[in-house]
Amino acid sequence: MAGVNRAWTLASYPNGEPTSDNFAVKESDIPTPKHGEVLVKTLYLSLDPYMRGRMRPGPSYSTVVEPGDVIVGEVVGRVEASESPLHSVGDIVRAGIGWQEYGVVPGHVAKPVNTSLGPISTAVGVLGMPGLTAYFGLLEVCKPNPGDTLVVSAASGAVGGVVGQVGKIAGCNVIGVAGSEEKCDYIVDELGFNSAINYKTQDVNEELQRLAPSGIDCYFDNVGGPVTDAVMTNLADSARVAVCGQISQYNATETPMGPRNFWALIRTRSTVQGFLVYDFERHHEVARARLAEWIKDGLLKYREDIVEGFENAPSTFAGLLRGDNFGKQLIKVAE
Amino acid sequence: MAGVNRAWTLASYPNGEPTSDNFAVKESDIPTPKHGEVLVKTLYLSLDPYMRGRMRPGPSYSTVVEPGDVIVGEVVGRVEASESPLHSVGDIVRAGIGWQEYGVVPGHVAKPVNTSLGPISTAVGVLGMPGLTAYFGLLEVCKPNPGDTLVVSAASGAVGGVVGQVGKIAGCNVIGVAGSEEKCDYIVDELGFNSAINYKTQDVNEELQRLAPSGIDCYFDNVGGPVTDAVMTNLADSARVAVCGQISQYNATETPMGPRNFWALIRTRSTVQGFLVYDFERHHEVARARLAEWIKDGLLKYREDIVEGFENAPSTFAGLLRGDNFGKQLIKVAE
Repeated sequence: MAGVNRAWTLASYPNGEPTSDNFAVKESDIPTPKHGEVLVKTLYLSLDPYMRGRMRPGPSYSTVVEPGDVIVGEVVGRVEASESPLHSVGDIVRAGIGWQEYGVVPGHVAKPVNTSLGPISTAVGVLGMPGLTAYFGLLEVCKPNPGDTLVVSAASGAVGGVVGQVGKIAGCNVIGVAGSEEKCDYIVDELGFNSAINYKTQDVNEELQRLAPSGIDCYFDNVGGPVTDAVMTNLADSARVAVCGQISQYNATETPMGPRNFWALIRTRSTVQGFLVYDFERHHEVARARLAEWIKDGLLKYREDIVEGFENAPSTFAGLLRGDNFGKQLIKVAE
Repeated sequence: MAGVNRAWTLASYPNGEPTSDNFAVKESDIPTPKHGEVLVKTLYLSLDPYMRGRMRPGPSYSTVVEPGDVIVGEVVGRVEASESPLHSVGDIVRAGIGWQEYGVVPGHVAKPVNTSLGPISTAVGVLGMPGLTAYFGLLEVCKPNPGDTLVVSAASGAVGGVVGQVGKIAGCNVIGVAGSEEKCDYIVDELGFNSAINYKTQDVNEELQRLAPSGIDCYFDNVGGPVTDAVMTNLADSARVAVCGQISQYNATETPMGPRNFWALIRTRSTVQGFLVYDFERHHEVARARLAEWIKDGLLKYREDIVEGFENAPSTFAGLLRGDNFGKQLIKVAE
């Protein structure tokens, strides 16, 4: 296929908040699939906080992006050319081709999107990695019981919104922590959380004491930092903390320091567990089907924050790390 | 029974390291048991780091000692008078009568000591709370597999020594962290640990990288602070951290600060869990029998640090918090 492919590559490791200097567009010919491969054209690029962790040297759970590399990421796209029996031209798929307009992958790496379940963008949102992360982190790590008090941070985000609503389905008292009045209203009025705390204007510790006087049984941690500190001092006995993300720390230029909190774990006999959605890969399809069912039944709502234009990916990503987004962050790259 | 009973009471909450000013001897008549009660004469008083946590106001997992109260603690003693069908005069029992020479408790609260298992002092040591803490924290929280690398801090102490030796029985590569060359030699040469790190003279992080190049699968944390920080940066995937104590923090006068380490939990999908020995109370007798069997078989050794004289309890306790002890700390109160 003739034409130009644009890719966002890492120009340099960010020092603190990513800036335009850290990214560079690389142009090349649209690649041609070889035997067994497909050419995917990006329609939506998913932006997710975890990407910041790849943009730094040092130990990670996955491949680190090095200067010159295309930034990692998953897209929803259309098969434009296929040399694989698994896909036909026109198929909608999701694939980890990174921040670029076109990518070639082996046929089995491009996953079919079931377009009957919802808009195709949801394949990288509520029905994709973020939704599944919420599902497994909550149900398999936090292990909520009916009646438990569940706190979720970054509560209006792609993961947090699902955590809270699945928590409601599981019979929990759900408290969301978010960064604006608008977001707080949304999670209570639209998503059905029991209550919300605005961490930018309220004392999180005091609010937690007021809203969870018997303590917090489950905490789904997307942010780390002072919000998490406040939760740790308000744990109920035998609490379960699922550590999903630490977005408040991702732009740190020095080792972040905070109050030591292991004593709280002894006092309450609580558990803190880090997890990745890929740990539960065998069960992804069951979870995806349940999430889709809950959407159909009106029990699970979602919100997307769609920015148009491939060129806006870096600035939108920087905003995502600041919490400027409202719902699942997507870049619409093509119709 | 005529005579004087001496008790160590809390004179004031310690500010930092406990000093003699924080303790006061209270004299009273030796109490008389009422119906169903027994009078216990203290032979050995057990000193344990957890006691420091009771000597401060604020949330704890148990009753806080207030100024004027007898300091909490368990003793091995002899029944001097009995109004309970459960005990006869002369029986050796353990009971939580606190830091005093005599105490009266309901008969069922005084637990018989099986004197055939070992010296009676072991009822508050390797065959008592510290030994059981080691057993359950290691086997039920760290859940070691043969071949796992296990790190234990305060490794020559009453708990740590048992952790490491049970870890060897469970097939682990055991690394102990202790505070002197003598203690390091002891855990390797006498207790059979694979290796030792002297945290006062060695770089713990560098030593862990050298001794556990594939990472640490299990960590039994008795100390918190910088030793724990070093372990957290060297966890293997799916590591389990049992948080038993945080002795390095107990004398802190301000909220202790340290590097935030939840990111390491995500990266390695690891679990940190606080626990108390009482969580496993239903299984204590099985564990005690196994520990006794291992001692008999020569698989489990222990060391006691016995200070003579009831009057020395406060200064010995302050030393215990500094790591001056070598093995299980006891006060010998009477023959």
